[in-house]
Amino acid sequence: MAIRVMFMGLGPIGCAVVKQVAARKGFKIVGAIDVDPAKVGKDLGDVAGVGRKLKVKVSADAAAALRAGKPDVVAHCTVSSIKAAVPQFEAILKARVPVVSSTEELSYPWRANRAAAKKIDDMAKKAKVAVLGTGINPGFAMDALPIVLTGICQDVQKVQVDRVQDASIRRLPFQKKIGATLTPDQFAELVKTKTVRHVGLTESVSMLADALGFKVDRITDEIQPKIATETVKSEFLTVEPGQVCGIVQDGVGYRKNEPVITLHMEAYLGAPETYDEVRIEGSPNLRVRAIGGYHGDVATASIVVNSLPKVIGAKPGLHTMRTMPIPSFFRGTVA
Amino acid sequence: MAIRVMFMGLGPIGCAVVKQVAARKGFKIVGAIDVDPAKVGKDLGDVAGVGRKLKVKVSADAAAALRAGKPDVVAHCTVSSIKAAVPQFEAILKARVPVVSSTEELSYPWRANRAAAKKIDDMAKKAKVAVLGTGINPGFAMDALPIVLTGICQDVQKVQVDRVQDASIRRLPFQKKIGATLTPDQFAELVKTKTVRHVGLTESVSMLADALGFKVDRITDEIQPKIATETVKSEFLTVEPGQVCGIVQDGVGYRKNEPVITLHMEAYLGAPETYDEVRIEGSPNLRVRAIGGYHGDVATASIVVNSLPKVIGAKPGLHTMRTMPIPSFFRGTVA
Repeated sequence: MAIRVMFMGLGPIGCAVVKQVAARKGFKIVGAIDVDPAKVGKDLGDVAGVGRKLKVKVSADAAAALRAGKPDVVAHCTVSSIKAAVPQFEAILKARVPVVSSTEELSYPWRANRAAAKKIDDMAKKAKVAVLGTGINPGFAMDALPIVLTGICQDVQKVQVDRVQDASIRRLPFQKKIGATLTPDQFAELVKTKTVRHVGLTESVSMLADALGFKVDRITDEIQPKIATETVKSEFLTVEPGQVCGIVQDGVGYRKNEPVITLHMEAYLGAPETYDEVRIEGSPNLRVRAIGGYHGDVATASIVVNSLPKVIGAKPGLHTMRTMPIPSFFRGTVA
Repeated sequence: MAIRVMFMGLGPIGCAVVKQVAARKGFKIVGAIDVDPAKVGKDLGDVAGVGRKLKVKVSADAAAALRAGKPDVVAHCTVSSIKAAVPQFEAILKARVPVVSSTEELSYPWRANRAAAKKIDDMAKKAKVAVLGTGINPGFAMDALPIVLTGICQDVQKVQVDRVQDASIRRLPFQKKIGATLTPDQFAELVKTKTVRHVGLTESVSMLADALGFKVDRITDEIQPKIATETVKSEFLTVEPGQVCGIVQDGVGYRKNEPVITLHMEAYLGAPETYDEVRIEGSPNLRVRAIGGYHGDVATASIVVNSLPKVIGAKPGLHTMRTMPIPSFFRGTVA
């Protein structure tokens, strides 16, 4: 029996999820919800760029779509803010449907957004279904994966995760988003408006701290510009020395003023190497490097799709990657 | 409340588990079982080399020890063979106690040992407790961890895992066990008597195949000697060119004569680097390397200990790492 999937939110991540679900076996698409008038009423295949009609019209009316589509699960990809997403979860959970969401703040909301987390947990338990927030980051690279690696440790003193990306091979909007060619002053303005901020470091630090039994008394999340020291070029841009070539963002969990969890991100033009690396200081020490890194966009859509069958069978309530069975690719068939 | 732990099996792995449990918070040791007359009646601290008395006597009578100790969980570290372990599980499950075991063939017995797996699953369900087989390999490096990594993939075509160890820095018994200084003929004799065989490749291939939806129609598990091409020395031994310096073992899962899962192990004197590497051919391709590798002995004991609290809360029946929540270090307290 194919899994009946409905989508809520058809931005870039939502559309990437639609494409994967449409391409894989084991799923049947039974509806799509978005508030954008430019998308409502259109065929989902056209909106998501699938390359064929999916014979499913995008609806603005969540309750009606849920009633008509009778989904087994909803793939929710709307906003980063858990508070903004609460009414959306309310609509889905009223229909008693499990949810996998890419909302960053939902990935581990028990510290920074406890009230909203409690509300969603209560609604999910009442509906007797599970809700999960996931993605590549937060949800995997800087939290679930390092936690998995500590499973072979007899002691853990510190965890450091580095995520370094050479932005020169990315799309122009990404290069602009990370501030390439700006002056440091212009970059500071961008930071104030929160346009460049990666959402999720506080959530990842909290998940690690709780999983590893670290009493973290303070979490910081800070952004700095990366300043070019020589001229760096991409296909689209040239950054002169002294200009911003990208961003550095650090999430740190402190125990008695000692950093025990350090999540370090760099994305800039001219980074010599793209990689993700977990270092665990403990017994044994571990150093695990993803050579070439994890592709953010593909990976987030993939882990949302791969989590769809898992959340259907999970215990009712609000889950995180900590409480779910290990992630795995879902082929939808035996081939 | 501390977790009441009992041990069954006090060989090298069992003793390493005892040492970790004795050193960590959150556990109370309530008994130990072993059939070796040289160990029975002695203090567990002395037998396991803890460096202090644990005020627990090793018992040969499993049923009596289980009755007296009232454990919350048993750490079972006896034999590699699931069939040989069935009566041991029977004794533990009659007392309705959950089990974490390092028995290699238990890690994923659903292909090679289905009847024994079914029997243990039935007994566990009747006892309303969970049973888990785990370890670094099988249980983590070549199965659970690669499966976790496929969680961020939209497609998986092939999985290759390499585990390469420089044996020259290991203990003399290990160097002898892998055949160092033997002639190729002498090595072939060792292979016949199964003295050098790593147990678990079939289990790891099966776990990967089932998790990833690969219809694997044939699994091979083959050992070759690694022959020295130049003189290699360790602290203990000198291997001349033409002599065996270690072993190479490959577990391969074929689909229509195409290898889709390849697990490759090398342990030999003079290996230029020790590492574990997972390569996934799919979308995206992934290459994840543990620089310096995973220390086998420490890691197996650690994952057994870290799994003790998890198996207590798990659904009754026979679990594998596929069906458990993600592994994580267990500190036993918040510090």
